[in-house]
Amino acid sequence: MKIIDLRSDTVTKPTSKMREAMFKAIVGDDVYEDDPTVKELEKYAAKLVGKEAALFVPSGTFGNQLSLFTHCKRGDEVILGDDCHIVAHEVGAASVIAGVQLRTVDTDGGIMDPLRIERKIRKEDDIHFPHTGLICMENAHSVGKVVPIDNMKEIYEIAKKYEIPVHLDGARVFNAAASLGVEVIDITKYCDSVMFCLSKGLCAPVGSILAGSKDFILKARKNRKLMGGGLRQVGFLASAGLVALKEMVKRIDEDHENAKYLGKKLKEITGIEVNLEEIHINMVFCNMEKIHHDVDEFVQYMRDKNILINPPEDGMYRFVTNYWVNREELDHVIESIKTFFPQ
Amino acid sequence: MKIIDLRSDTVTKPTSKMREAMFKAIVGDDVYEDDPTVKELEKYAAKLVGKEAALFVPSGTFGNQLSLFTHCKRGDEVILGDDCHIVAHEVGAASVIAGVQLRTVDTDGGIMDPLRIERKIRKEDDIHFPHTGLICMENAHSVGKVVPIDNMKEIYEIAKKYEIPVHLDGARVFNAAASLGVEVIDITKYCDSVMFCLSKGLCAPVGSILAGSKDFILKARKNRKLMGGGLRQVGFLASAGLVALKEMVKRIDEDHENAKYLGKKLKEITGIEVNLEEIHINMVFCNMEKIHHDVDEFVQYMRDKNILINPPEDGMYRFVTNYWVNREELDHVIESIKTFFPQ
Amino acid sequence: MKIIDLRSDTVTKPTSKMREAMFKAIVGDDVYEDDPTVKELEKYAAKLVGKEAALFVPSGTFGNQLSLFTHCKRGDEVILGDDCHIVAHEVGAASVIAGVQLRTVDTDGGIMDPLRIERKIRKEDDIHFPHTGLICMENAHSVGKVVPIDNMKEIYEIAKKYEIPVHLDGARVFNAAASLGVEVIDITKYCDSVMFCLSKGLCAPVGSILAGSKDFILKARKNRKLMGGGLRQVGFLASAGLVALKEMVKRIDEDHENAKYLGKKLKEITGIEVNLEEIHINMVFCNMEKIHHDVDEFVQYMRDKNILINPPEDGMYRFVTNYWVNREELDHVIESIKTFFPQ
Amino acid sequence: MKIIDLRSDTVTKPTSKMREAMFKAIVGDDVYEDDPTVKELEKYAAKLVGKEAALFVPSGTFGNQLSLFTHCKRGDEVILGDDCHIVAHEVGAASVIAGVQLRTVDTDGGIMDPLRIERKIRKEDDIHFPHTGLICMENAHSVGKVVPIDNMKEIYEIAKKYEIPVHLDGARVFNAAASLGVEVIDITKYCDSVMFCLSKGLCAPVGSILAGSKDFILKARKNRKLMGGGLRQVGFLASAGLVALKEMVKRIDEDHENAKYLGKKLKEITGIEVNLEEIHINMVFCNMEKIHHDVDEFVQYMRDKNILINPPEDGMYRFVTNYWVNREELDHVIESIKTFFPQ
Repeated sequence: MKIIDLRSDTVTKPTSKMREAMFKAIVGDDVYEDDPTVKELEKYAAKLVGKEAALFVPSGTFGNQLSLFTHCKRGDEVILGDDCHIVAHEVGAASVIAGVQLRTVDTDGGIMDPLRIERKIRKEDDIHFPHTGLICMENAHSVGKVVPIDNMKEIYEIAKKYEIPVHLDGARVFNAAASLGVEVIDITKYCDSVMFCLSKGLCAPVGSILAGSKDFILKARKNRKLMGGGLRQVGFLASAGLVALKEMVKRIDEDHENAKYLGKKLKEITGIEVNLEEIHINMVFCNMEKIHHDVDEFVQYMRDKNILINPPEDGMYRFVTNYWVNREELDHVIESIKTFFPQ
Repeated sequence: MKIIDLRSDTVTKPTSKMREAMFKAIVGDDVYEDDPTVKELEKYAAKLVGKEAALFVPSGTFGNQLSLFTHCKRGDEVILGDDCHIVAHEVGAASVIAGVQLRTVDTDGGIMDPLRIERKIRKEDDIHFPHTGLICMENAHSVGKVVPIDNMKEIYEIAKKYEIPVHLDGARVFNAAASLGVEVIDITKYCDSVMFCLSKGLCAPVGSILAGSKDFILKARKNRKLMGGGLRQVGFLASAGLVALKEMVKRIDEDHENAKYLGKKLKEITGIEVNLEEIHINMVFCNMEKIHHDVDEFVQYMRDKNILINPPEDGMYRFVTNYWVNREELDHVIESIKTFFPQ
Repeated sequence: MKIIDLRSDTVTKPTSKMREAMFKAIVGDDVYEDDPTVKELEKYAAKLVGKEAALFVPSGTFGNQLSLFTHCKRGDEVILGDDCHIVAHEVGAASVIAGVQLRTVDTDGGIMDPLRIERKIRKEDDIHFPHTGLICMENAHSVGKVVPIDNMKEIYEIAKKYEIPVHLDGARVFNAAASLGVEVIDITKYCDSVMFCLSKGLCAPVGSILAGSKDFILKARKNRKLMGGGLRQVGFLASAGLVALKEMVKRIDEDHENAKYLGKKLKEITGIEVNLEEIHINMVFCNMEKIHHDVDEFVQYMRDKNILINPPEDGMYRFVTNYWVNREELDHVIESIKTFFPQ
Repeated sequence: MKIIDLRSDTVTKPTSKMREAMFKAIVGDDVYEDDPTVKELEKYAAKLVGKEAALFVPSGTFGNQLSLFTHCKRGDEVILGDDCHIVAHEVGAASVIAGVQLRTVDTDGGIMDPLRIERKIRKEDDIHFPHTGLICMENAHSVGKVVPIDNMKEIYEIAKKYEIPVHLDGARVFNAAASLGVEVIDITKYCDSVMFCLSKGLCAPVGSILAGSKDFILKARKNRKLMGGGLRQVGFLASAGLVALKEMVKRIDEDHENAKYLGKKLKEITGIEVNLEEIHINMVFCNMEKIHHDVDEFVQYMRDKNILINPPEDGMYRFVTNYWVNREELDHVIESIKTFFPQ
């Protein structure tokens, strides 16, 4: 029987259209810039987010770190949210590759107070101060929430006032756009560079995009080589990425609808707490601590029902809907949980 | 006429006893560990703070950064206060030399919430997580406030629970001890390594101490060489440092009394705001924004009165008392300010 | 008409068997270690080179740098050949990611004098010395020459005498094995870790392998995440890699025979100098400076004949044979050159 | 009885004139640029070596590493001699602080083949190449030999041809000038920045100078703060440094004469090999392997005669003459050796 995988949208397998595209892909050696398919993808992606140029990178972490490394000189300070992916889930890479000092502000699901950011900017060339080299935002935030465009705009304007570049970790920027009911370009206009993933909700197997100005991408291309990301016949991955951008972006709202459906149904189960207001994209967070249960036992029980879930973090289970999980399968998930926790 | 310098306690010149000690100092090549005076200082200093060993370093920044570099491996995460000296005033060095990722928590004058620190500790070896390599405290804090021992103890105990070393930036640890009315060892027992300055309020011309376990100091000695801090006939500086520790520590409370006196008098001037409760050590912060005045003009006026002050930061003037400023001179400061702002 | 690409073996496109394998590949999220195909590849690859474990990495540069980063602590010294790929063609990455100091010895096509290596090893824990953290060899060397096994053995034994690990840049280790007439394991037993490429002569589109002890690969897996090389449904690339290792390794000698054939024929052209003794693998170096010609014109002429070549480096043209160029096409290359340089 | 210390010229203690200068020194807080004595020293030093500006640094290693850090951006390549101090005796600091890749050429006592240097320069902006950020020379070389001005000039001209800055490690540049019979400026005109030591043969207790263009020194001042070298009342050290430059430079030739004398006398002892041609400055290297002896026993015997020497490195004893060892004391050294090795 089919596995229902709710651990993350990173687990999404490619669609059959992607497999076909990969099979037929015309490729070349991209270190020589000879791969037409990756060139097509980079051009398409740049246009989609309204930037001059784009670059294929092997992963979201790679793209974010490449951006820090390319925007900043070593020892620069980067202002960003304390719980953002770059700080929390990239293994401390910013201190190794870019060699920058992270200066964090608290966030509310990615929303940062523009005044607090402005206070952290190093305004003078004091001998004790590093240079503020970059401000980073993340939208959708990896805790599943979407940052309003106004918040991004305010932060972007402060950055521009001090001539500081802005990078957007847009791993799930298409989820953000769908949730906000805007075009992705309405979001990405408030950043100088953006990284977004072709995998995750878009289902491509491997790869992300870093987009920005021509100059920035030119430097990033060389830095990508230094970081070991200069790939050869990468058109295979790019061909799936093109399907992701052309076909999958437009359907991503379905995952959000499914998340809301799942959240609503779970909330109906006594003892399960779900904040429906906070289901912005494809992630449902729920607290089941009121129903005393053994976590390992529950995860194993779900696995026996062909449902994969992660154990809770900080007391919260996270279920992520995606292309490969339909409404009927969600009903099976809900029924299974109901059975485990008899009312 | 004598200059009254209130800009910082870093401006303190050595006492005549220090000059004499330097003149007569017996020295040797400390890279060969042949300098008896620095050896005596290191031994004395280690004992004073209750550590096995100590090392002379050229500056407080050097000592803090050497500590990060020696405690941590590259890419480790260091938890510390967002406004501490290492974050705010060391030029981003932690991302250059130690190559560590700073993870900050908000502080109230250096006081950090132990629970917030515990939440930032990386408890699992998740593939997305850096290793938490160090927790840093600062006492007295460079904003002039003293951290209660209980707060330090709580944080230290959490660190020990997770087997994480603790470094204390004790640039002004003797001010902290005097303010708290305890021995310095009552503070330093809640850290594994401590840096403190021989200059600043203690008046030695150059130099700080890094103290810790024998193993730690052995590694730090080699790392100090790498960082260019292996000095030759350093006994000259050490001889002044010995006077600082033996003579100046016990009188440091005078500076605090003077600061309280200055604060009280300034508060009496209409329009000047001073929080007397917050004068813990030798620093008086006051807000004069209510009295509209031109900052440059005021600083120049004071200079004409032979008084050196810095312009305000974030609206606050900071006046630092020290060995070289006596009560009578403070009266001259107060009178000068009164004259500038006629009531 | 088909393009004959002699610029490098990195330009090789995947075989149709690879395309089919990719089309059918069973994949999963490899960050969760859920991709069976990459697991199969890693297991197969480890066994092939006689190591306990192996890891898929996006490129050869990635694999080499990951190895430096995993073997060494920052500031360590790495002894290696002055003209090896890590020094000459990896954009200075060793000073950025691993943060190590390169200590080079001259090589003759990759052959290093074991005594010179031994002299560079830091034998004492002198306060002035970095720690020697790694010795690197490269076989086949990127200048197209093969290092004899005896030379590797001698260097490996010196390394073991001083308990220093050895990494082998084996980007073309299968070419080396074929050229030496040995199994690849006869080469890789003289190293603790080896990186080899699935692309290049083996024709897989993207990817390399880093192999070593279980402990080493466990650490490398986390470091790979830090470097942005944690990929998702990477089984697509792995499936092509499996074909490369199972099918393409055994035919690589053909490329060497073709290179010798091409070299021999070029040498017959008056004015073209080729050292046939130095054709160890699939690379023919020839000097055409005696025949005065305009380089750009020649490269363009060849392009018009559907033959891609790079301009000379240091006076030498390099032609690289590969799976996609057969004997008949080489004859077309030879005839074209003859026509350009009429005798 | 007085100790005769031949281990190094780093062991030299300050003269009584230096002690007096230190006693009377007018000092201030140099982080505020308020110390008139260090300002005087920096001005004097800059003029002496013909540069626009200069900066006091705590050690020679500090000055060299600060120079690398200030000239280069991270990942740059630095071309320098394989046995120079920066490579051999600075603990691998270049890979930690500046984060640069060292590219070495063989030297003959510091003399480098200009053509070999030119070959190592990265001439194109190839995607595989780091940028060549700096060329370093060392004169006098730490093996005690002096590099002819013509060699420096040739290398400097190549550097200028490719617009690459040149740094001179001139730890003993005054020894080099004395040995060559030129002014120090005749040497330093072939570099863009120079580091020289006030300690060593010049007898100041602590400190070195980094000199270069105004812009370079401005940047270096901030980088010095980052590296922990921003000192406070550093005029004490500077006052001794001024004596060193004004008084001790002119007498340094005496040490060279004494070295030649010592060398000549040692050579007369059967079994001791000394290459008199190679005594360029204050260092005598001699090989005593022909006279079988126990090294530890010999070193201890000398110590009992109040003579400090280091054990041999690579079979060579090094005796360093200096201000504190006069001709009569050298005779005592020679007699002691003669007695140990009866003829």
